[in-house]
Amino acid sequence: MTKGESKGGGAKVETAIKPTRADDYAEWYQQVVRAADLAEGSAVRGCMVIKPWGYALWERIQAELDVMFKATGHKNAYFPLFIPKSFLEKEAEHVEGFAKECAVVTHHRLIAGEGGGLIPDPKAKLEEPLIVRPTSETIIGASFAQWVRSYRDLPLLINQWANVVRWEMRTRLFLRTAEFLWQEGHTAHATREEAEAETRQMLDVYSTFAREHMAMPVFKGRKTDAERFPGAVDTYSIEAMMQDRKALQAGTSHFLGQNFAKASGIRFQSKQETEEYAWTTSWGVSTRLVGGLVMTHADDDGMVIPPRLAPAHVVILPVLRGDDTKAKVMEFVHGLAAELRSVTYHGRRIEVEVDNRDLRGGEKSWEWIKRGIPLRVEVGPRDVEAGSAMLSRRDRGTRDKASISRVDLVGTITSILDEMQAGLYARALAHRTEHTRWVGSRAELEDFFTPKSVRMVGGDERPEMHGGFALCPFAGDASVETELREKLKVTVRNIPEDLPDGGPDRSNMRCIFTGAPADKVALFAKSY
Amino acid sequence: MTKGESKGGGAKVETAIKPTRADDYAEWYQQVVRAADLAEGSAVRGCMVIKPWGYALWERIQAELDVMFKATGHKNAYFPLFIPKSFLEKEAEHVEGFAKECAVVTHHRLIAGEGGGLIPDPKAKLEEPLIVRPTSETIIGASFAQWVRSYRDLPLLINQWANVVRWEMRTRLFLRTAEFLWQEGHTAHATREEAEAETRQMLDVYSTFAREHMAMPVFKGRKTDAERFPGAVDTYSIEAMMQDRKALQAGTSHFLGQNFAKASGIRFQSKQETEEYAWTTSWGVSTRLVGGLVMTHADDDGMVIPPRLAPAHVVILPVLRGDDTKAKVMEFVHGLAAELRSVTYHGRRIEVEVDNRDLRGGEKSWEWIKRGIPLRVEVGPRDVEAGSAMLSRRDRGTRDKASISRVDLVGTITSILDEMQAGLYARALAHRTEHTRWVGSRAELEDFFTPKSVRMVGGDERPEMHGGFALCPFAGDASVETELREKLKVTVRNIPEDLPDGGPDRSNMRCIFTGAPADKVALFAKSY
Repeated sequence: MTKGESKGGGAKVETAIKPTRADDYAEWYQQVVRAADLAEGSAVRGCMVIKPWGYALWERIQAELDVMFKATGHKNAYFPLFIPKSFLEKEAEHVEGFAKECAVVTHHRLIAGEGGGLIPDPKAKLEEPLIVRPTSETIIGASFAQWVRSYRDLPLLINQWANVVRWEMRTRLFLRTAEFLWQEGHTAHATREEAEAETRQMLDVYSTFAREHMAMPVFKGRKTDAERFPGAVDTYSIEAMMQDRKALQAGTSHFLGQNFAKASGIRFQSKQETEEYAWTTSWGVSTRLVGGLVMTHADDDGMVIPPRLAPAHVVILPVLRGDDTKAKVMEFVHGLAAELRSVTYHGRRIEVEVDNRDLRGGEKSWEWIKRGIPLRVEVGPRDVEAGSAMLSRRDRGTRDKASISRVDLVGTITSILDEMQAGLYARALAHRTEHTRWVGSRAELEDFFTPKSVRMVGGDERPEMHGGFALCPFAGDASVETELREKLKVTVRNIPEDLPDGGPDRSNMRCIFTGAPADKVALFAKSY
Repeated sequence: MTKGESKGGGAKVETAIKPTRADDYAEWYQQVVRAADLAEGSAVRGCMVIKPWGYALWERIQAELDVMFKATGHKNAYFPLFIPKSFLEKEAEHVEGFAKECAVVTHHRLIAGEGGGLIPDPKAKLEEPLIVRPTSETIIGASFAQWVRSYRDLPLLINQWANVVRWEMRTRLFLRTAEFLWQEGHTAHATREEAEAETRQMLDVYSTFAREHMAMPVFKGRKTDAERFPGAVDTYSIEAMMQDRKALQAGTSHFLGQNFAKASGIRFQSKQETEEYAWTTSWGVSTRLVGGLVMTHADDDGMVIPPRLAPAHVVILPVLRGDDTKAKVMEFVHGLAAELRSVTYHGRRIEVEVDNRDLRGGEKSWEWIKRGIPLRVEVGPRDVEAGSAMLSRRDRGTRDKASISRVDLVGTITSILDEMQAGLYARALAHRTEHTRWVGSRAELEDFFTPKSVRMVGGDERPEMHGGFALCPFAGDASVETELREKLKVTVRNIPEDLPDGGPDRSNMRCIFTGAPADKVALFAKSY
């Protein structure tokens, strides 16, 4: 799979990202994020700076999801950043889950201290501390309680795009940061059935988005009690396999029952004129998805962006050799760019970058490879004369390029992009299939998740890449989950709805851990 | 100007918003925001909830500005919510301006206290308090210092859409809230001239946006030293006149010189290979603009939205009389909606709401009037037979409606909307012109800003609506500004670039306060 310039006859292949995935996956990830100019750390512990190319990816994710949310009847709104401490205290499980590690605002003024620096003004201490929202069920619930009076006000279908903060000790860009960007849907319904249907509908929206836009196959399913959202009745998730075979929880959808409605007082008068508590849901995805894109598609030369989420689809790199041909080349380049921009790809104009910076061609080309733009097009004086261009695809080797006529490039670019999108999905699915296994016993599961060898990288031990997704009948014994988490760092990711072929006869299953009758198959994996 | 149902022959006109602008302007504003369902207060002091219709307005503002920012070469990125205290301390003027009233995070965990409630965990006290960003010059400056090495890295043209917090004691929805949403542009340049040109360019972007999209005329100009952004060399603003004749600062653009570059260490190697500090700018507009829209265009029946910013341009209200015609009416309505949606208005599809809620027609119609949707279209069985509809325009009286054929409606909707947009601008401009005055002496200025009578509203004294914009030569004496601020609450809004006709001979002006030679004309007003 490694691509790049081959240095010396058949010797080790040089890649743009060092280390490679095989050498040190965790460090490879950091290097891809850096080389693709997606994000970096900041002076504030655990908070990241999302750089323009990374933010543009997030904007693409937002744009596509926003259309899907609005098509399913949701409207955007905005609620306060701060949550009064007393609100968090209202829902018992919720406070357990979220009060632990959060940013607490205690003062509303700084004054000059004795040493000359600033200190929080003791006179400006808040009567009640405020929490920077880790999630907004409680503060949005307070509004819903005001907005809902009668069954006619339901369903209430709201989404918020916002930043949230969860204090984290060990952070990784996009995957786990103290502050992150996300959307959080919050809905209230008159009946349990409607709220459950909403929960499932948004899970479907997420899995459709992952498959069609991110080119990332996911297992969707319900979480076990141990992995539920604090305060939820049921939590559903989509789980994707990263290239190191660990699972990434890429989105969650919660059926909250009446727990939060009771905590926040979301009551309504029913058609029968009785007073009822509403049934609520919440669901969210975050900038973590950008990390998921990296770990699903990037390779040892950098980022690989699925065309449907690409901030730009194609970069044109003029090859300028001497001043006499420069004007002609640039005229051709701008003409080609305009033609390409007039093409529609999945409801959006083809986005073209023209990179005429005064840098060496190789340097520019590698920069775009590392950033993962789907197509690179070189145009030199000879191409102009032939009415053609040299096309390179990011899903092929970095030296791979082929001449294509201008007419064909414009005429086939959408099918080339579609082919790339489908190819990325197929590759990710093949990877998942290769590393998903039905296991028939606890011993087999434990063996699957135990690395067979360890290598030294720097001064650290690194287990070889191992494991993947293990499927087996599971009776739901929480103590089994605790054991596996502690012993192997393996958890039940979810109870998948759609299972791959194989496995035991579904009508007569027994839990591989306890031997008890089991009606569910669980997906076990190590995870981010 | 008052519109609404006339109850009784020529008696007092009933309006949807009570009190009217004339009766109690401040309360009228709150009632319009409420009646139009734009926003409301929250349980968190000073923080507002932006409701779906208000948020959709903000999304429209964002969408149009974002295109303008990108067209001028800017890219979006995202920086941390928190600013280390030490960063704020770096720029002396800046800390004076922003350290005063801000949200200070001192702990990163809550634990159960003795009384059972949660308390900040004393063991989780931060070594250095974090400030919730009131503005991001210092935290973005730290990134710029990393990103800029050589003149080749310049200019750096970045924008951020984000929430910010400035602790405010007296808050008003949209106009002044502790948390608000905004965009903040931050750029770095190799030369003073380039940075100054950027500052001016973005001021032009803002004034163009205000004029063309918000239908809000503005004076653009430089602030006096007393009104500069803390840490800036020059601050420019756009200032609009609200219907109570007070000024609203609707956007600012700051030339920061090398102040922040020196504070943050933004250095680069010049073409001449010398080490230089960069020249930076920042510029921003906020959700305050939504308040500006209300106070520029709303009337005594509620919100009036300029068509180019309308979340929806037209609502179709089916008039259903009995089941036998319902299907026909709804078929016509959906067909008409589809036809209208296929029309493009300034690069965007016409947005159509179909309101078939089971409510009385009058109730629905008034709801949309109060929300300020530009056009209302009623369709009943007789309209269907005639192939027509009843059209009402929000810029005319609420009872005003006229039959229009379906073909004409579809064919002329864009010109109707353009006419409304132009009419709103003309009305706002006429209002501003009427209440803008050249003053020739301090006595005249003081008289202009002194109410002539006072009325009792509830138990409070309310001065009659008075004043406006006063223009006069001003030599820039800061003590004059202090006196006027303290005595009359009047400030120099800016030094306008483009002046209305009239006033003294520009080649030989003397300050009306000090008699000193003056080369500038200042705009004085009371303000929000």
